[in-house]
Amino acid sequence: MYRDGNVKDCIRVGMFGMGVVGTGVVELLQKNRETIEKRVGMPVRIVKSVVANKKKKRNVDISSIALSDDLSFILDDPEIDIVLELMGGIEPAEKVILSALKSGKSVVTANKALLAERARVIFPAAYDARGHFGFETSVGGGIPIIRTMREGFAGDEIQEISGIMNGTANYILSRMTAEGIPFHDVLKEAQKQGYAETNPTFDIEGYDTAHKLIILMHLAFSGYFDYQSLYVEGIAQITLNDIEYARELGYQIKLLGKARKTKQGIEGRVHPTMVPNTHMLATVSGAFNAISVHGNFVGPIMLHGSGAGAYPSASAVVSDLVEACRFQLYGQKTPLPPISVQKKNLKSIPIVPIGDVETEYYLRFPVKDKIGVLWQIAKILSENHISIRFVIQRNATYIPEKPVDVVIVTHTSVEKNVQNAIKAIDLLPFMTDKTKLIRMDPD
Amino acid sequence: MYRDGNVKDCIRVGMFGMGVVGTGVVELLQKNRETIEKRVGMPVRIVKSVVANKKKKRNVDISSIALSDDLSFILDDPEIDIVLELMGGIEPAEKVILSALKSGKSVVTANKALLAERARVIFPAAYDARGHFGFETSVGGGIPIIRTMREGFAGDEIQEISGIMNGTANYILSRMTAEGIPFHDVLKEAQKQGYAETNPTFDIEGYDTAHKLIILMHLAFSGYFDYQSLYVEGIAQITLNDIEYARELGYQIKLLGKARKTKQGIEGRVHPTMVPNTHMLATVSGAFNAISVHGNFVGPIMLHGSGAGAYPSASAVVSDLVEACRFQLYGQKTPLPPISVQKKNLKSIPIVPIGDVETEYYLRFPVKDKIGVLWQIAKILSENHISIRFVIQRNATYIPEKPVDVVIVTHTSVEKNVQNAIKAIDLLPFMTDKTKLIRMDPD
Repeated sequence: MYRDGNVKDCIRVGMFGMGVVGTGVVELLQKNRETIEKRVGMPVRIVKSVVANKKKKRNVDISSIALSDDLSFILDDPEIDIVLELMGGIEPAEKVILSALKSGKSVVTANKALLAERARVIFPAAYDARGHFGFETSVGGGIPIIRTMREGFAGDEIQEISGIMNGTANYILSRMTAEGIPFHDVLKEAQKQGYAETNPTFDIEGYDTAHKLIILMHLAFSGYFDYQSLYVEGIAQITLNDIEYARELGYQIKLLGKARKTKQGIEGRVHPTMVPNTHMLATVSGAFNAISVHGNFVGPIMLHGSGAGAYPSASAVVSDLVEACRFQLYGQKTPLPPISVQKKNLKSIPIVPIGDVETEYYLRFPVKDKIGVLWQIAKILSENHISIRFVIQRNATYIPEKPVDVVIVTHTSVEKNVQNAIKAIDLLPFMTDKTKLIRMDPD
Repeated sequence: MYRDGNVKDCIRVGMFGMGVVGTGVVELLQKNRETIEKRVGMPVRIVKSVVANKKKKRNVDISSIALSDDLSFILDDPEIDIVLELMGGIEPAEKVILSALKSGKSVVTANKALLAERARVIFPAAYDARGHFGFETSVGGGIPIIRTMREGFAGDEIQEISGIMNGTANYILSRMTAEGIPFHDVLKEAQKQGYAETNPTFDIEGYDTAHKLIILMHLAFSGYFDYQSLYVEGIAQITLNDIEYARELGYQIKLLGKARKTKQGIEGRVHPTMVPNTHMLATVSGAFNAISVHGNFVGPIMLHGSGAGAYPSASAVVSDLVEACRFQLYGQKTPLPPISVQKKNLKSIPIVPIGDVETEYYLRFPVKDKIGVLWQIAKILSENHISIRFVIQRNATYIPEKPVDVVIVTHTSVEKNVQNAIKAIDLLPFMTDKTKLIRMDPD
């Protein structure tokens, strides 16, 4: 409670980056000042901020915050107790976090890219640090999934994580499903309305979900995973056709990040998934996020809420900030291991290659209507040990050469067998386009 | 890490009560032993248990646990670090918790009745204690709602809590809705299948939900609330008729515990509620629980999972146990204030009387079909400042004196006005039964 012989009168916070999330944090600390002081037991003040552009006009009152564009302005100040890293990106964020942890400050970060891609550097530093390390904001925005994994599931072996973790992708899929508008039209409109970035690759190609998934995998399975080993596939290829067939089968198409423990090891994959209507994740629409975690004792738990945006993100940053304050005021290293287990128990864990994954598959074969088409497809599937669960073929009247879809839903099959079958089927002369594959969640 | 000069080799746990939850905890600690040791950094052992009947046959291996029927067997043992209170009921549970806290042990309890009815005794003792006080299991079983409220929402002002917190009641309402079976038939079947207790009063009359709601209110609004001041109404009066009208209007009937901050103060009430189909809570079916919390920055967050049962409850107990271990190993008082804020900030907060609540109402008037019925009802509603939003009257052909329902949905109205109107309407000669009132959540 004392530093340099003086009585501590408030918690001093230094903030790196003052963009959307940063200004949200400033606003929250002003609006909820009184409540937060009651929760911490002392005022919490952002006294300094390092920003790229000191002149930039901001929509919040920052008159009490000293600005600089020099990292050492905060890092070298021994009076700063807690550092908020809200810059994003790899450098200089990594330097900021490592340096702050080393000097005994607590650190709160929202930086999913950094945690996902540099886990082996950041987490060990957090373990060795005296301060608290909070990263609730990095996954699911305002949804308290990090502390749920680290503390709520502290008694469980986690068997599966399955989440809608990108609001933009879910917004697009939801509108395609509800209104029957094709992907590119929804995307264009979403960009106009600010629901999607000008460069939406990161969201719609699944990389953002992949960053979040790998962070959760660290917590769930207590080890280091290679971000590069995740299988990642986006939603740009999803057609209204597929959505319509999904509906007919009783499913919703969602971009899921999924990890599970199987007899092959730990799977980790991001791709469009057909989720049965009976599952809570199927009911998540619009820009919301939801994450379902299955523990061996607790069963399935689902958390639902706003996965992004200035306010929900600020809420998550401040929840970590309050936690860091509480630990700081007890003058002690946090007892919370950043990745759930003690440091010595962490090891590198490989991710099961996508070819070895076993799940159910939706396969849509665009064909010219001909006698023998279904037979030839079924034969190749059978040769590849793929068993058929459902077939949909809609053409009521046979018009030779007319392009139609043959849709087949498989029983649980091995991915590489399915890929081999598709490779062979795609060479057949009656195919008018490549086979479309969407992985399915079991009922 | 040291006690009496000896190196601590494990965390020693004493467990009071070995019923459904207790044996679940024993089983969990055996099955997930290795993982929990990695999370804590040390073995965690239940070394002693106080039980009512030492001879009782139990379905788990308890050969390493010393049994006694004497409370002091654990309470007077300085080697016990953490006490699990899984007895339930007020006495001797209260004595056990107070005594354990006083002697510096950490305490984990699942006792919602005690926390709800004796909050003013238990929580102050927890604030003054050196050990950790965990009560995650008391609300929502395996759903990590307590830590979400205390830590996840640490930056937010909480505006509303709304939850399906009793699995039995939700199971009954779900089956009535899905299958059109009347209340008493579903209840009887649920009792046969073990989904409902032989004496189901506590679940179906809303008292169990009320216990849980008041615990959450303490956390959400940082003060003491009187359990007796909650408005509590059960589901025994819900008819298939009401469920059918709800469906027509686009709603599901759920037993909700609801608390919210309004200009009148803090509301707290438990009653059947019509939840719009567009709300996530409407999708919660069967014996599941779900709790939605609305913060002023994070927006609405919903947690969904198993609210009861040996395994989910054991999971919650052990999550608290691991947290207590982590704090114990750092040899310090927990920095987590049991009710979110510092002790000095806690005050008694009154609950807004039900008469002052403002919400929307579904009113079903069972009448004899007569000319002028709707006019007379509408007149009384109008005299009581109640504005009508919808009317449903189904009888296609007018058969004088035939019993029919007039259903009216109101705009937001004041409860006491609605009650006054009903009192007057129930006296009208054409009424064949009392008016049925169900409160509605806004769209």
